[in-house]
Amino acid sequence: MAAQEIDALVVTHLPDVRWLCGFTGSNAALAVTGSRAVLFTDGRYTTQAREESRGARVTIAEKSALKECCALLGESVKRAWFDPQHTTVADLALMRSGVSAKKSRGFFVPLQKPLVSALRMVKDEAELALMREAAKLGCELFAAMLPRIEAGMTEVVLAAELEFEARKRGAEGMSFETIVASGARSALPHGRATRAKLPRKGFVTLDFGVILNGYCSDMTRTVHLGGASREERAAWDAVLEAQETAVSAVKPGATCGDVDKAARDVLEKAGLGKYFTHSTGHGVGLEIHEQPRVAAGQEMRLEAGMVLTIEPGVYLPGKFGIRIEDMVAVTETEHRILTPATKGWIEL
Amino acid sequence: MAAQEIDALVVTHLPDVRWLCGFTGSNAALAVTGSRAVLFTDGRYTTQAREESRGARVTIAEKSALKECCALLGESVKRAWFDPQHTTVADLALMRSGVSAKKSRGFFVPLQKPLVSALRMVKDEAELALMREAAKLGCELFAAMLPRIEAGMTEVVLAAELEFEARKRGAEGMSFETIVASGARSALPHGRATRAKLPRKGFVTLDFGVILNGYCSDMTRTVHLGGASREERAAWDAVLEAQETAVSAVKPGATCGDVDKAARDVLEKAGLGKYFTHSTGHGVGLEIHEQPRVAAGQEMRLEAGMVLTIEPGVYLPGKFGIRIEDMVAVTETEHRILTPATKGWIEL
Repeated sequence: MAAQEIDALVVTHLPDVRWLCGFTGSNAALAVTGSRAVLFTDGRYTTQAREESRGARVTIAEKSALKECCALLGESVKRAWFDPQHTTVADLALMRSGVSAKKSRGFFVPLQKPLVSALRMVKDEAELALMREAAKLGCELFAAMLPRIEAGMTEVVLAAELEFEARKRGAEGMSFETIVASGARSALPHGRATRAKLPRKGFVTLDFGVILNGYCSDMTRTVHLGGASREERAAWDAVLEAQETAVSAVKPGATCGDVDKAARDVLEKAGLGKYFTHSTGHGVGLEIHEQPRVAAGQEMRLEAGMVLTIEPGVYLPGKFGIRIEDMVAVTETEHRILTPATKGWIEL
Repeated sequence: MAAQEIDALVVTHLPDVRWLCGFTGSNAALAVTGSRAVLFTDGRYTTQAREESRGARVTIAEKSALKECCALLGESVKRAWFDPQHTTVADLALMRSGVSAKKSRGFFVPLQKPLVSALRMVKDEAELALMREAAKLGCELFAAMLPRIEAGMTEVVLAAELEFEARKRGAEGMSFETIVASGARSALPHGRATRAKLPRKGFVTLDFGVILNGYCSDMTRTVHLGGASREERAAWDAVLEAQETAVSAVKPGATCGDVDKAARDVLEKAGLGKYFTHSTGHGVGLEIHEQPRVAAGQEMRLEAGMVLTIEPGVYLPGKFGIRIEDMVAVTETEHRILTPATKGWIEL
């Protein structure tokens, strides 16, 4: 904050609040000044807030935690910064109502660049250890599911079994809605698990993640049921090559755009470029989607401690789709794959 | 829109988009004018958007769906309204960048009162049928879990088994993180399931919901393991009475504040008022928390077709907590409970 000449900060984005002070409740406003931090929440969290928060005094708001948080800042500082990405227009009005009319004009300043989320991009050793654990659990689940995947079972039952295993092995939940997309449905990059039955011949894409100790995992594997056509196999090989090439490009100093291009070039060369309709990856941590974005033209440079997904894919509408995804940590010298589950061709 | 003299609307809140045009993807901006609707999304959803949307033309944005949506409106209308509750300060800046500088001043007008979410409060017959189904599935799950609850099992395994059953029975997912709070942890109103073991003696609160066909269910029951103390049983009886009294108050024309007061008065009389630290309930539908809020002083009047949760509770820090919750639909004459699972005292 001092580096950016920020006197005070209102933090409401829950993962930021958790990262800063440990509180995990669903309603929080954290006032941070150079000298102290005060967490505002509501009566549902009286006990939990006191148990969880570190380094912040806890105040239970009578009405609006956010408004009372801003009222405190209104009495103690001249200006307060906020995150425009995670503050609604309505919340900003509520924040203004918390400080006196005389002060409210210009009191709240939108951060010009991300502050807490920028800090959160680089994970420390303790966080990396937790993320390795989460990623490892994901890999164990994939291994546990492999023998259970068979033609005729519904996508939703496969998702259910995976999620049940995740829970039994300690996951707090899934980091996003489990994707099981089979047959022609694999061409939907974000196809939820439906009651569709796994086909006798065709791809099955499994894209899932767990939350373990608050941290998210994320991985994708695409396996094949029955014999693959030459077109299917060639496309799969190209996606794997794209994925591995992009992983190889992950190192400190490389830009996110470089990594994206590494994947995209391989697919272009294979004549599949136009079917790669999304970006190559994203940061991951307390949230499933964090900075940086690993996308075309992104100039952010990678730093040791960042954790990214690398997940190129191709989607041929009405035919099939393929995606392969790892979580990769940037190290001091290069990178480390956090999801060591097999990436070889799997035909079931 | 005509009634409120609104020429055009930018809709970005995903449940609103789904309710208006059926699209369920994770990135959408819907431009609505008096004569047409255009849905903007990105390349991940090319196939899905065309399959799902009804009554809206689909445009796949090159870069930002939201910005392109606003650019279209900038060319075709004089002003466009947006929902300040679901538009971040950053998104508003992006929206403004989509229209010409000359136009952008005053082009975007915050809705003074909720529009789509207000419409969504009142469910039509088709929606009520889906919500009954979701609520029924919730009740079946509670019945299926009862014989499995026993001292020594961990909260997280109980949650996992419940969620697995939900998935196997067709749920797309859970409507929120399943709460299993046992023993002294039941005093945490939003205690997530942890690795804590269910005690030999004490309460277990199960608060969970499924998502079925997009609609959320929500219910809570608190059961007791081992013999209850007089204090525990008296508190439980008071919560049940508060819950039933509040349910009885649900009818067209009653205010939300009336319903809240009905529950609160019973607990006050029982000397437990100060332990009832949250509001009595909330609307539910495509989202787990919708309007109206069933809270002290809320003057909104109930209308036929609204679906509410009624969920008073008491939380004695360090000792125990109790919550009982139903989903209740407002009918033309009174109300209908959508969650018919037993509310009698259960000792396991």
